[in-house]
Amino acid sequence: MGGRARALLYPGRVTTISFARGAPAPECLPVDELADCARAAVERDGRAVLAYGAGGGYGPLREWVAERHGVEPGRVLLTAGSLQGFVFLAQHLLAQPGQRVLVEGPSYDRPLKILARLGAEVVALPMDDEGLELDALADELRRGGRPAFLYTIPTFQNPSGRTLSRERRLRLVELAREHDLLVLEDDPYGLVRFEGEPAPSLFELADGEAIVYSSSFSKTVAPGLRVGYFVLPEALARPLEEAAVSTYISPSFLPQATVLEFLRRGRFEPNLERVRSLLRVRRDAILLALERELADVAAWNRPQGGYFLWLDLPDGVDAAELLARAHERGVTFVKGSDFFPSGRAGAGSARLAYSFASPQEIGEGVARLAELLPAPARA
Amino acid sequence: MGGRARALLYPGRVTTISFARGAPAPECLPVDELADCARAAVERDGRAVLAYGAGGGYGPLREWVAERHGVEPGRVLLTAGSLQGFVFLAQHLLAQPGQRVLVEGPSYDRPLKILARLGAEVVALPMDDEGLELDALADELRRGGRPAFLYTIPTFQNPSGRTLSRERRLRLVELAREHDLLVLEDDPYGLVRFEGEPAPSLFELADGEAIVYSSSFSKTVAPGLRVGYFVLPEALARPLEEAAVSTYISPSFLPQATVLEFLRRGRFEPNLERVRSLLRVRRDAILLALERELADVAAWNRPQGGYFLWLDLPDGVDAAELLARAHERGVTFVKGSDFFPSGRAGAGSARLAYSFASPQEIGEGVARLAELLPAPARA
Repeated sequence: MGGRARALLYPGRVTTISFARGAPAPECLPVDELADCARAAVERDGRAVLAYGAGGGYGPLREWVAERHGVEPGRVLLTAGSLQGFVFLAQHLLAQPGQRVLVEGPSYDRPLKILARLGAEVVALPMDDEGLELDALADELRRGGRPAFLYTIPTFQNPSGRTLSRERRLRLVELAREHDLLVLEDDPYGLVRFEGEPAPSLFELADGEAIVYSSSFSKTVAPGLRVGYFVLPEALARPLEEAAVSTYISPSFLPQATVLEFLRRGRFEPNLERVRSLLRVRRDAILLALERELADVAAWNRPQGGYFLWLDLPDGVDAAELLARAHERGVTFVKGSDFFPSGRAGAGSARLAYSFASPQEIGEGVARLAELLPAPARA
Repeated sequence: MGGRARALLYPGRVTTISFARGAPAPECLPVDELADCARAAVERDGRAVLAYGAGGGYGPLREWVAERHGVEPGRVLLTAGSLQGFVFLAQHLLAQPGQRVLVEGPSYDRPLKILARLGAEVVALPMDDEGLELDALADELRRGGRPAFLYTIPTFQNPSGRTLSRERRLRLVELAREHDLLVLEDDPYGLVRFEGEPAPSLFELADGEAIVYSSSFSKTVAPGLRVGYFVLPEALARPLEEAAVSTYISPSFLPQATVLEFLRRGRFEPNLERVRSLLRVRRDAILLALERELADVAAWNRPQGGYFLWLDLPDGVDAAELLARAHERGVTFVKGSDFFPSGRAGAGSARLAYSFASPQEIGEGVARLAELLPAPARA
């Protein structure tokens, strides 16, 4: 009796396989090294690490990030994950409600919720396999009324896994310049590349002007440390640091100093290489399983890095309805419509995260999904 | 040539003595122990500590706090310092602008700024040496229109160092019940008691109903860890945890797990005893110096714990003007008006924090201040 049949007979025994969690597999976490780095960080600089300090974060890590991005440390804001920084930025830029914000459709769901809460008019621009469609952006910018900002994840996007091509990056920077458009480039996944040549960031292409760059150590070191950062134009650096001060005085320096210790010991690159390998086999496992189980049924992309791919379901299959049945069958994902500001779009699609489950679970999970989808029409 | 005369001759050599910083002296920080606790926390539970998790905080520390306060862990929200929790609570309760919030006059300045930013109508109620004047509260409650909440720091208040008497605590809880008034009891200093018997908290007197209790490990372990907490009524626990999730997904668990390790090792009470001793000598030093230098000039209170005392300046002395001259003279404090929602009140008073400077610096700092004040009228 095969695993799937057993699972149906004894549903209590089915362990749910998650394509929903946008989190690294536990073995990606360098636990022992970070334990030692945490101790060393406090021993090295305890009286600063354990005291109140700058709202913008632990000075020596701000300096490290600043040097990496070629800016003054005062332009770096370290936050408890980059989402916290997104909240500060959005609150500042959307002080008046009803302002327009441009996003990719689909886009990361948490920022969409924050923007909705702040009363923004969120406009989702279409994407294709090369990322954001820039003709649509140009049209939108010509529509008049400068948007508060454009939020984009150009590399290994959450949720689609898509990457903006180099040509489009150049044109996007041009368009932003032409229309005086502030762009927030969120880049948490860029370094988690399995193959292919990286394109320059928008921030690099624009020489750091008019682009807010955000990233974090969540995908390269450990998400639970909550160390994200923003590289800001000078005009935004001070008000956002003030927002941080009036929210939590200063952030917790212990996780930030722990990350810095990890960097100083030269552990960042070797660990990143290890994480890339662990995730690459997962990406390969999901592509193989999809090809085996769903070749003539659904469509998907082949991300060169990151955590996610985007699944287009067969015509007529509703992701919400499929998700309900998938839950019962012991497999989960996030339905595509969660990544659009309006509930209408994305109904026939799903985000599959391959970052968390083991390669074996990934194969089994795709097989469980396939059983719930219509069989391919045989020619 | 005495120290003060030297300082006047060589102003570049004067080290500023701070009565402004509401922070513990560096020797209060148990650096070596926390270094070891941080390592042990990651070694013990690294895969949870370093991963995404519950928005309400690190489970085992929530359980510890919950047990201490006799509630379910789901009612405990751990935040990056308690100010972060104040932001969540105020944003939730003040979703409609223009609502009334009652505070003590004077009150902690950071919450006042947050309330102003959220568009609240902030009403400062008078205090005397026994804390909030409850007749004034009763009058205000009879004025009609239920306030969104009352914010109070009943023990060793910031900024005044005053403590609400036991009788008033009982009456406050009664008034709150009668008028269906939500009370936020902020209690970061309660355990930092040098002498005298502690009064029960409002939370205890009200059996945990209709009182939101907040505290932190900033004054008992280390402020830079940023581990604060809220104990919430059930109706508030879920929306506030949701606010946390949509702001930073989950808080950084490393500082929270480090605090828990410190607690588990039985280091909390011995360290607190040490901190109390270090701060008691500072409180004694400032009282002695004030008596010596300002006995017939100014008035102040004698706090039994905490970080602060409140100085009433001689008639006609404006704290803002004094502060400018004090800066030049190498001593700082926070002017009383910063602790009132309106700029008019508190002009003749100052908050003196004795927590940070050394006992020797405290004596010198008070002497510097005294030189700037009018000499006492000799009878």
